[in-house]
Amino acid sequence: MTQRPPITAAHSGLRSELVRSSNLSTVLRALHARGPLSRSQLGTLTGLTRSAVGALVTELVRLDLVVEEGSAVGGGRGRPSAMASPAADRNVVIAVQINVDSIVAAAVGLGGTIHSSQRMNRPRRRIGVEPTVADVAALCQQLITGLAMACTVHGVGVGVVGLVRRADNVVIVAPNLGWHDVPLGDLLHRALGGSLPVLVANDADLSALAEMHRGAAIGASEVVSVWGEVGVGGGIVTRGELITGAAGLAGEVGHLPVNPEGSQCGCGSTGCWETEIGATALLRRAGLDPDAGAAAVDGLLLRAEAGDATALAALDAEARWIGIGVAGLISVLNPAIVVLGGLFGRIFAHTTVVIHQEIERRSLPAARAGVRIVPAALGADAPLLGAAELAFERVIADPKSVGR
Amino acid sequence: MTQRPPITAAHSGLRSELVRSSNLSTVLRALHARGPLSRSQLGTLTGLTRSAVGALVTELVRLDLVVEEGSAVGGGRGRPSAMASPAADRNVVIAVQINVDSIVAAAVGLGGTIHSSQRMNRPRRRIGVEPTVADVAALCQQLITGLAMACTVHGVGVGVVGLVRRADNVVIVAPNLGWHDVPLGDLLHRALGGSLPVLVANDADLSALAEMHRGAAIGASEVVSVWGEVGVGGGIVTRGELITGAAGLAGEVGHLPVNPEGSQCGCGSTGCWETEIGATALLRRAGLDPDAGAAAVDGLLLRAEAGDATALAALDAEARWIGIGVAGLISVLNPAIVVLGGLFGRIFAHTTVVIHQEIERRSLPAARAGVRIVPAALGADAPLLGAAELAFERVIADPKSVGR
Repeated sequence: MTQRPPITAAHSGLRSELVRSSNLSTVLRALHARGPLSRSQLGTLTGLTRSAVGALVTELVRLDLVVEEGSAVGGGRGRPSAMASPAADRNVVIAVQINVDSIVAAAVGLGGTIHSSQRMNRPRRRIGVEPTVADVAALCQQLITGLAMACTVHGVGVGVVGLVRRADNVVIVAPNLGWHDVPLGDLLHRALGGSLPVLVANDADLSALAEMHRGAAIGASEVVSVWGEVGVGGGIVTRGELITGAAGLAGEVGHLPVNPEGSQCGCGSTGCWETEIGATALLRRAGLDPDAGAAAVDGLLLRAEAGDATALAALDAEARWIGIGVAGLISVLNPAIVVLGGLFGRIFAHTTVVIHQEIERRSLPAARAGVRIVPAALGADAPLLGAAELAFERVIADPKSVGR
Repeated sequence: MTQRPPITAAHSGLRSELVRSSNLSTVLRALHARGPLSRSQLGTLTGLTRSAVGALVTELVRLDLVVEEGSAVGGGRGRPSAMASPAADRNVVIAVQINVDSIVAAAVGLGGTIHSSQRMNRPRRRIGVEPTVADVAALCQQLITGLAMACTVHGVGVGVVGLVRRADNVVIVAPNLGWHDVPLGDLLHRALGGSLPVLVANDADLSALAEMHRGAAIGASEVVSVWGEVGVGGGIVTRGELITGAAGLAGEVGHLPVNPEGSQCGCGSTGCWETEIGATALLRRAGLDPDAGAAAVDGLLLRAEAGDATALAALDAEARWIGIGVAGLISVLNPAIVVLGGLFGRIFAHTTVVIHQEIERRSLPAARAGVRIVPAALGADAPLLGAAELAFERVIADPKSVGR
């Protein structure tokens, strides 16, 4: 019944090349996230026909991004039981996490395997940009030197405890490092010789990304992550993607105004959520040195387990304020999962009852009906695994860009 | 250099059909939003080649969705200066807005032209579901009867002052109508004879959609809209699309917890943003009957313009609390534009200075750097125009679904 109008060859050729790239990406993404997989499993996951999957896997093998066990490389269709896996040994990124008191770097293979890692502890005080860039570059070089010759390094992903403008990889402000407007991506790109792409993001955003790909929120497309230490950050995933906002700054949930007559916040406002739920507030309520850090929080948890009333009351107050903000985020964003990480992951068992009480009291019943509140699954490695995802994204989005 | 692996005909045929549908949709969307447009303007807007645009416009003309001036229908390529427009007279949806004290319905043509509208005022008290469905169905039938014979009605979009689960068009709760768990979409679908698709959404979500397509935020892909009357709702747009959350409930910004020791909210919590900025709070602060409605707000604005100190103080307090919440939304979502509508649009001129002061004090400097705070442009028609967009979306996403 439908009469087809003419389509020019140029047009349909261009578009089917785009479709093909997008299908290559779909198959590589599935293998990166969930490999090894058989061709029929790939067909089920991607909705592509068996013959299309075959052609795409063959192309990915040719690009040296995938290995297929039981298949001759270069045109063979493989046995029915052949399993395809990401070529983790030959495709690596360097993931870096810049903390207040340490730098951690790791060589991570396609598929998320950590091949090797390096940690450098540094004095817990404000450290200049230049020595930090030099330290990070040195760690990256050590890791790269240790890789096999046949291995391609696709890029470097960096997580920082600060606000990052994703568009140009600039750290706008990192209060705990004393940094302002640092073009970290460019500096590191040059320090590494000018050939490797370097991408920089906020560590809480990266943790959210990692939890979505490999942690507590696998497969969920509507996720809110809240990450706490001294500062509080977060990541918001809708339709399966991390939202970035207009300038790549979205997700700063720590600055929700939960108590406008409350304490002064580092950002210049008063009563931001992080003034009520960051490590400083928790330790202060427990009568401890507010700046004593993670070890003091561990001590507080031990005291709470021994029944210490002050410690328990401090955790209840913390839980109440966590619940208040999470309730607001549930009403505004209607997530399927809320992931609590960092400090909030470590105190999860001690706070979950009160958090749920506040959510019950304060969020819209319909929005909270289906939501799960879960602790982060990846622990301290989450930002590093997220930095690896960031660095792999370009290759996975456009597998042919490896240019083999 | 690149050896192409074999692609089966079935696979590439299926995919290029998908690409073609998607391009048809792209062209129709551009015409719906910005028509009339010449073929070369369409090429610039969509990135498609001139010959592809020609074939796609010809197909849309054949589907009776587009008219092209200066072109013979059915195969002609048109003169270079031919202008394509949406066929507004032959493709219509019925848009409905159910308010607390009225129902408004309109026949809206493709391209957003309002052909005709009907308004029914109703007593401002809780009205049952059945009489409302009967009233809405009667208005829709009157509008449909008045349309030309050659006109196709593609569906019905309905905005309601309540929380709506988009997945199944159920009004979960509409406190001001006294409704709970009303399957409004299904009821109206049946009342209209069972053939027209009916989609239901929250009126603030629809206003956000309309402002993005035809109002204050045209062309912006990162938008937060805040709509106030007695209740406060909103819509969040990221990457050019309204976010829905896990169950279609996202955007309920009125329930941000801005003052956890504050007033009781209708939702059961205390100190939600809407308890501080809804019409009730504004009128109460001005010493007026909190339930006196929009006319009382107009009176308050007249008193403020005459220099009345109580009225000015009430507007300043209102502005301060609007600014506090907007600052939080800027930090969390990093929008390019914040649209203030309904009550907040009407009082915009009286509140903008204080709102900006609070945003300056309270939001992250990097996130607020590029943001514009603007009043809604579409006034009271916004939900209705949004309801029309909702009803047209299926046709625009898949033009061939009209089955001609």
